[in-house]
Amino acid sequence: MTDDLTRDAFLGGQLHLWQPRSGYRAGLDPVLLAAAVPAVSGQSLLDLGCGAGTAMLCAATRVPGLMCTGIELQDSYAALARRNAAEAGITAQIHTADLRDLPLDIRQTQYDHVIMNPPYFERHRGATSSDPGRDTGRGGATPLADWLETGIRRTAPRGTLTIIQQTARLHEILAMLYGRLGSVIVQPLTARPGRAPNLVMVQAKLGGRAAFQLSQPLILHVGAIHNHDGDDYTPAIRAVLRHGEKLPLGG
Amino acid sequence: MTDDLTRDAFLGGQLHLWQPRSGYRAGLDPVLLAAAVPAVSGQSLLDLGCGAGTAMLCAATRVPGLMCTGIELQDSYAALARRNAAEAGITAQIHTADLRDLPLDIRQTQYDHVIMNPPYFERHRGATSSDPGRDTGRGGATPLADWLETGIRRTAPRGTLTIIQQTARLHEILAMLYGRLGSVIVQPLTARPGRAPNLVMVQAKLGGRAAFQLSQPLILHVGAIHNHDGDDYTPAIRAVLRHGEKLPLGG
Repeated sequence: MTDDLTRDAFLGGQLHLWQPRSGYRAGLDPVLLAAAVPAVSGQSLLDLGCGAGTAMLCAATRVPGLMCTGIELQDSYAALARRNAAEAGITAQIHTADLRDLPLDIRQTQYDHVIMNPPYFERHRGATSSDPGRDTGRGGATPLADWLETGIRRTAPRGTLTIIQQTARLHEILAMLYGRLGSVIVQPLTARPGRAPNLVMVQAKLGGRAAFQLSQPLILHVGAIHNHDGDDYTPAIRAVLRHGEKLPLGG
Repeated sequence: MTDDLTRDAFLGGQLHLWQPRSGYRAGLDPVLLAAAVPAVSGQSLLDLGCGAGTAMLCAATRVPGLMCTGIELQDSYAALARRNAAEAGITAQIHTADLRDLPLDIRQTQYDHVIMNPPYFERHRGATSSDPGRDTGRGGATPLADWLETGIRRTAPRGTLTIIQQTARLHEILAMLYGRLGSVIVQPLTARPGRAPNLVMVQAKLGGRAAFQLSQPLILHVGAIHNHDGDDYTPAIRAVLRHGEKLPLGG
């Protein structure tokens, strides 16, 4: 399988990850998700749908001593996540499992932080890809409500759940969280100035009692269009992607 | 009571309204609410908690032929709304009623557009004022959920519900609307650049099937601080306040 893989640098080279050359490949989103988790050393983190481990391993790179557990439906991605964790020297438990049918020991555990980057398109809505791995990563068959239900149940008291998702699903996410997790923060992400935010991160806390917060959009790229070579990330985003800094949500 | 009233110009002088000198006085918010209603001549509009009629009468000034109905708990404000409508030459039915116990004919009617600007603070949370009218307008005893439930029930098929409220209540609003009204648009309102949006307008349609939209924040005032005499509204807001233009929500 190695011929079909690439080894890519993340966090300014602090982390290298094997990814399939043509399947689901991590972009900006799992890196931002990892940066937003308010984790400290010694806490536990559950990454639902961890893929090749990008979000979980970015978080563990920033927070040494984070105890990571990943759940991944597709065995080939779970195997990559195990390899990526081992090569990074990060201790992580990776389970090949359907998040709707978790192993007993996971079902009996609550985590300080739960993170998820569910597919942005539902399978029946978009065109399917010829690559089944990419297809599941881009538009899985598991309803978003099941992702959230599993995540909510696995969040420890005072623990956080953090999700990144397209804005069109924000209403569904907030409806699922309502009355179950508190201290909800919505962080819109806007590709470029002057556009509507196409992605959101939502973070909530079990037992949190702070008022709901909607932050001003975080803009990813400078300028209205991409008009020079190389990346054009805004300073806050560059600090996350190139220097592995954290990205705390809320005011 | 006239000694205790002021007569104030709205929409660049297109509308004048009597308001209590020291009670609940309309600011920007009902004017923006009125500008966001996608009403056309001949349609019906229900203003829940209409106060002295500001939102309803601003909408009717922009849309001649709009058939307005106002519900107001406090008789002194309902009387002002009737007077304001009559002096503006706008035909409007104003009922003194609790929105949780509407007159039968209102309960049997659905409206093309329902608007509401509920109090921003719950009575038990904030300090009370010595003026009971202002107290009810600023922080009434009617739960927000009751406002929304009444508004949803009175919305006609393909009709819209539009609410302006503080951002801290957005989660509650969206939870109430979920699965009942569709085509939801959230328009954050930010006082000045660089701040989190402290107000939101939410608009939804009965039977609407469009994707949920979160718009980029609409900024009310130019500059980070108020540093010159007079108002400092941004052009889009000035167009609404001083020229009576509409403010369509969504992309």
